[in-house]
Amino acid sequence: MSDRTTYAKQVLTSQNIELPSWAFGNSGTRFKVFAQQGVPRDPFEKISDAAQVHRHTGTAGSVALHIPWDKVEDYAALAAHAAEQGVRIGTINSNTFQDDDYMLGSVCHPDAGVRRKATDHLLECVDIMDATGSNDLKLWFADGTNYPGQDSIADRQDRLAEVLAEVYARLGDDQRLLLEYKLFEPSFYTTDVPDWGTAYAHCLKLGPKAQVVIDTGHHAPGTNIEFIVAILLREGKLGGFDFNSRFYADDDLMVGSADPFQLFRILHELVSKDVLGPESGIAYMLDQCHNIEAKIPGQIRSVMNVQEATAKALLIDREALAAAQAAGDVLAANAVLMDAYNTDVRPLLAELRVEQGLDADPMAAYAATGYGAGIIAARKDGQAAGWGA
Amino acid sequence: MSDRTTYAKQVLTSQNIELPSWAFGNSGTRFKVFAQQGVPRDPFEKISDAAQVHRHTGTAGSVALHIPWDKVEDYAALAAHAAEQGVRIGTINSNTFQDDDYMLGSVCHPDAGVRRKATDHLLECVDIMDATGSNDLKLWFADGTNYPGQDSIADRQDRLAEVLAEVYARLGDDQRLLLEYKLFEPSFYTTDVPDWGTAYAHCLKLGPKAQVVIDTGHHAPGTNIEFIVAILLREGKLGGFDFNSRFYADDDLMVGSADPFQLFRILHELVSKDVLGPESGIAYMLDQCHNIEAKIPGQIRSVMNVQEATAKALLIDREALAAAQAAGDVLAANAVLMDAYNTDVRPLLAELRVEQGLDADPMAAYAATGYGAGIIAARKDGQAAGWGA
Amino acid sequence: MSDRTTYAKQVLTSQNIELPSWAFGNSGTRFKVFAQQGVPRDPFEKISDAAQVHRHTGTAGSVALHIPWDKVEDYAALAAHAAEQGVRIGTINSNTFQDDDYMLGSVCHPDAGVRRKATDHLLECVDIMDATGSNDLKLWFADGTNYPGQDSIADRQDRLAEVLAEVYARLGDDQRLLLEYKLFEPSFYTTDVPDWGTAYAHCLKLGPKAQVVIDTGHHAPGTNIEFIVAILLREGKLGGFDFNSRFYADDDLMVGSADPFQLFRILHELVSKDVLGPESGIAYMLDQCHNIEAKIPGQIRSVMNVQEATAKALLIDREALAAAQAAGDVLAANAVLMDAYNTDVRPLLAELRVEQGLDADPMAAYAATGYGAGIIAARKDGQAAGWGA
Amino acid sequence: MSDRTTYAKQVLTSQNIELPSWAFGNSGTRFKVFAQQGVPRDPFEKISDAAQVHRHTGTAGSVALHIPWDKVEDYAALAAHAAEQGVRIGTINSNTFQDDDYMLGSVCHPDAGVRRKATDHLLECVDIMDATGSNDLKLWFADGTNYPGQDSIADRQDRLAEVLAEVYARLGDDQRLLLEYKLFEPSFYTTDVPDWGTAYAHCLKLGPKAQVVIDTGHHAPGTNIEFIVAILLREGKLGGFDFNSRFYADDDLMVGSADPFQLFRILHELVSKDVLGPESGIAYMLDQCHNIEAKIPGQIRSVMNVQEATAKALLIDREALAAAQAAGDVLAANAVLMDAYNTDVRPLLAELRVEQGLDADPMAAYAATGYGAGIIAARKDGQAAGWGA
Repeated sequence: MSDRTTYAKQVLTSQNIELPSWAFGNSGTRFKVFAQQGVPRDPFEKISDAAQVHRHTGTAGSVALHIPWDKVEDYAALAAHAAEQGVRIGTINSNTFQDDDYMLGSVCHPDAGVRRKATDHLLECVDIMDATGSNDLKLWFADGTNYPGQDSIADRQDRLAEVLAEVYARLGDDQRLLLEYKLFEPSFYTTDVPDWGTAYAHCLKLGPKAQVVIDTGHHAPGTNIEFIVAILLREGKLGGFDFNSRFYADDDLMVGSADPFQLFRILHELVSKDVLGPESGIAYMLDQCHNIEAKIPGQIRSVMNVQEATAKALLIDREALAAAQAAGDVLAANAVLMDAYNTDVRPLLAELRVEQGLDADPMAAYAATGYGAGIIAARKDGQAAGWGA
Repeated sequence: MSDRTTYAKQVLTSQNIELPSWAFGNSGTRFKVFAQQGVPRDPFEKISDAAQVHRHTGTAGSVALHIPWDKVEDYAALAAHAAEQGVRIGTINSNTFQDDDYMLGSVCHPDAGVRRKATDHLLECVDIMDATGSNDLKLWFADGTNYPGQDSIADRQDRLAEVLAEVYARLGDDQRLLLEYKLFEPSFYTTDVPDWGTAYAHCLKLGPKAQVVIDTGHHAPGTNIEFIVAILLREGKLGGFDFNSRFYADDDLMVGSADPFQLFRILHELVSKDVLGPESGIAYMLDQCHNIEAKIPGQIRSVMNVQEATAKALLIDREALAAAQAAGDVLAANAVLMDAYNTDVRPLLAELRVEQGLDADPMAAYAATGYGAGIIAARKDGQAAGWGA
Repeated sequence: MSDRTTYAKQVLTSQNIELPSWAFGNSGTRFKVFAQQGVPRDPFEKISDAAQVHRHTGTAGSVALHIPWDKVEDYAALAAHAAEQGVRIGTINSNTFQDDDYMLGSVCHPDAGVRRKATDHLLECVDIMDATGSNDLKLWFADGTNYPGQDSIADRQDRLAEVLAEVYARLGDDQRLLLEYKLFEPSFYTTDVPDWGTAYAHCLKLGPKAQVVIDTGHHAPGTNIEFIVAILLREGKLGGFDFNSRFYADDDLMVGSADPFQLFRILHELVSKDVLGPESGIAYMLDQCHNIEAKIPGQIRSVMNVQEATAKALLIDREALAAAQAAGDVLAANAVLMDAYNTDVRPLLAELRVEQGLDADPMAAYAATGYGAGIIAARKDGQAAGWGA
Repeated sequence: MSDRTTYAKQVLTSQNIELPSWAFGNSGTRFKVFAQQGVPRDPFEKISDAAQVHRHTGTAGSVALHIPWDKVEDYAALAAHAAEQGVRIGTINSNTFQDDDYMLGSVCHPDAGVRRKATDHLLECVDIMDATGSNDLKLWFADGTNYPGQDSIADRQDRLAEVLAEVYARLGDDQRLLLEYKLFEPSFYTTDVPDWGTAYAHCLKLGPKAQVVIDTGHHAPGTNIEFIVAILLREGKLGGFDFNSRFYADDDLMVGSADPFQLFRILHELVSKDVLGPESGIAYMLDQCHNIEAKIPGQIRSVMNVQEATAKALLIDREALAAAQAAGDVLAANAVLMDAYNTDVRPLLAELRVEQGLDADPMAAYAATGYGAGIIAARKDGQAAGWGA
């Protein structure tokens, strides 16, 4: 076994992909949410489903919660349930876009009362972090406007800054605020945090506990995402990822399904700076909508896609790459990258799984458990979880 | 009054903008539908609201229905209600995207049974056309796939062609099939009718009663829509429009609100071929979502935006334009167009309205009626209409 | 060796990728053409360079010419030179964009004299086809406008149609007219053949000898190219490809370098209809600009990229794919495709090359010949070929 | 005359639009540079042409130089010539993209020698600033890569930062470094300063004399430019503009010709913060390519387009806008903006010109001078200026 393979296995073993609780609930487009069978009815069941993904991949050890979708009476009980299932509770995601008061915005709303309400929700999320032991508060704001003139772009930034400062002040020593940006949707003219630059500018002012989150589906067409990864890493402001993939807008497809080469290039930037492990503090999360495919297998497949891209990036011959780059040999440098990308890493990952006591084929192993049929039977009654839109 | 002004008024008087019944119901994004007050609870109330728009603009004399959202027991009663309100029922829009069976498509679905169901719905829509006296069946298919390999692109085209042929055969002599295309959403990898070329190819095979519909929000970034207008006019295959506007994707904002110059350029192509009047057979319809603005005023404003763009296009000095074009004088030709665009046509339109016995300012006139407050009070109870997603 | 491998090798053996003579000359952007050393000084040297690519890949047996860049006194001598080098002359590409008369267009120009000049050039290209034995005339028109109002979109279509008809009438029985479309550049408002629909509409009217060419870099962001491939195949109007790749606009990078998965999906559509061989009549050509990388190795690499994508597409388990599609199993169908894509086909191709009497590694084999150093020495004097912009 | 009109005239009088010397030379695309007649042959003639634009608009009092295109022996003589013509020398623009050494980059090049050469050029530009009395050094870097792996994104940032620091240190007290970003072209995979965030991050570290330049054609599709304007203003980091317009990529069309409403929205952000006057320190420059239209009239028209957008923005009823925004009245707030946009401001500007002693119609006035015919006759011989690509 070559040194690079050994190294690759070692890093892959340390990798953690966080799953979003909401990926297990129903989701859809504005045209239709197609209900699936066996969908969880509460946060406990979502965590149980997420744990299946971890059971077969060994790399999905935490589950992100979304408040209020995952509100429970007793967070200690939820955390205990997670531990029992072999996973832990990860990032807390806030929601300031589904109350009727938020029609024209939340933290950027012209009305101070609405902003207060939104701020209180964010502070409540920090309370929940305290209760669950979560370290990260992920903030994505749907705030924006649909029509030119509807509100003042500049004033909205001032309001945003004020709320962020209040929330930041509430954070504990080991807690972070992760600010996510998005070009558009649900706002269609301006979005108040539309790009990494805006998120970065706010985080810079807030301080070291504020960092930027990259959702791979939240950019304008043609945006070079790995460039943003490199820049934020250089600035020490990369807090985490929401992984998914897209052909058009924020399609929220399975990560690696639309452009696996892009995913590889992103992982290459991360691998080349050795920030894949937990000590980097970067949260690697999935954020997807399995509108038409089965949800648990969809998550398993997504975790495998990230693993495969990671493995390929780890196999890059860094010395050869650096030498070709220094020599200005365009074709040779590109070839080093492509050699790794063109490698079939599935045998390596199968081998690693077996070494970890897992089945070599997570999809087949999951299918063999009968878990999917079980939940369809067990969850016939009650209200399936969803976005509540 | 100049000849051009006289001509402009004459054409403007003949212009009809069709309103979509669903613009008066609640709509939103996948993140949230913000309910508004006073929203219609049934198709009758939608038509009443649409009639308000016609009352103040004089140019919105027909209302498109969407089946099944606008299904009623007695279409004759609905048509009578429309007539009473001073409007008539226009295009019938089908819906093959909101039944659970349609998760993987409708007319392109791999399962013949699902295709049969979808086809039957389309045939039912023709029945409704017979009952309402509607001439146009508008077909927009959400069909497509989310993942590469999910289905065969080519096979899906074959299925589509077969269904379209069956529906086409069912049309009466004065009835048309209008096929709408859309780049993406709700499908995120392929859409089965993604562009005008695909719609055109199908309509060509179907025959003269099949034409293409352009929804101004359904294109890839950078697409020149007025070019498509010109091409379809040249081919005799332009059936109609779904007007709205967008900054990013299919934002469904008020027409003319995002890029009024584009709307003007589209109208210029139409005006230059004298196809604005009813004898052209081109259906000019709005298709918008008033997610955050008041719906009736939103429609009034939209109709006014189309009127203003039309008036500007009508003021273009065609002779001067043709002369500059023939001479290859780039700046002069562009200047002729911009002279018309930069003209403030609001006085002309105000004058025309007064001549038509309308108030010069439709927005103010509507506000003065108290209709908006009335419906808020009257429609407190019951279920507000919406997309039913 | 499995059946699929045998089949793959057989199809790969029949595959021909045509090289563009101009890829061996200097090229660049509007900002700078960086001259490379050893660049050909005339069409004979271009063909010699192209033959190197064929020598090491065995799959690049023809060379496209561009008129007037490749004008020579004696085409028979050029054809003989090609034959001597083991290749043949392929498609003839016309140029109606580099004469000062063409500032406002060529075949769509408002001035009849300019259109006559352009038409005569196209007819001359058919003469050259007769002289070289070429079957295909590839037409790409830079025609368009930069400013709204500059010219009439519709009138320009009429002029285009008239010229195309005259050229079509001049074609011999075995000759075709291939019409290429492009969204934008060098025109920045309208382009007269901007999309496949426009090219298709013209070809339909011209007749069976007119077909559409897809340049993979000529689309709006987000366009699904494999969908267009499927549609044109279904309509019998796919004439050929200009392969290259892009991140942003018409970047003309090496095919497969920006989005290898997209290239695979395109090849999948072709493979699934068995149209890779010469009997399909589809011309598979590269059209790239090696602005900063070495040109001959850049072409070798590109041919290999197409071969690899083809090999992967050939390995798709068609029966399993069809079964999963018919069953509506989204994840399984996608997985069949991805299994093939994730396979490392380089060993298969190396094996095939050895079976064909070639070196397993074309890049290394070419480097070992010393040809690159030889031409640098031999071509020191004289004027390097380029676009002549 | 209303207060708003008075105020509008006052601000318009203080407005200065800087012209780029290179707009008067020949330009084109990679396909062809169409030479025009009467084009300047040296920087003195370019300044003479620019002065014509100022003569008829009264608002184009400075001319930007591009080094080395505008290199002269005696900058004092050039400045004196400008003063004589009624204009002054403005921003100095550097060029690190047209030397063969820069094929793989300039300030980010892997080779230290090339970076030294590029840095020396930038320092020389500061020398020229000293000689001409220019305050602003505008830096646009074509640096980037075409292929994944070609070079290290992160290393290139380090090199860039080092060069910028050296140049910054060389600036005099009244001199600024303006850093321009661009998404792509001439680089097609990564660009080293691709977005405002990257430029902002560098400027922040450099210090108060470093600011960001927005070229309106340098963004991804769908980017909201006025949002960036608002953000950079809020951060005190907006240094200036390169105005032009585009439909697709960096088309460099006349400002306001592709999307006049966008230009208006940009001006609205500037007007609402009262930063149009010279005391704001924001450099308002045109950067266009008149590839097919006459150059001097093209510049006059462009200046007029900016003036018209500015006038409309100045007519916005700010109090009504703020009130509607505070009330959350979406339609009313939008209507306030649109009322101003829909106003025909050409009479106001004509009036202002007459008050300033200018002709009411700059285009007609220029045409009447015969200057255009004069330069065609006078500049028959010699080498027309151009980009020298």
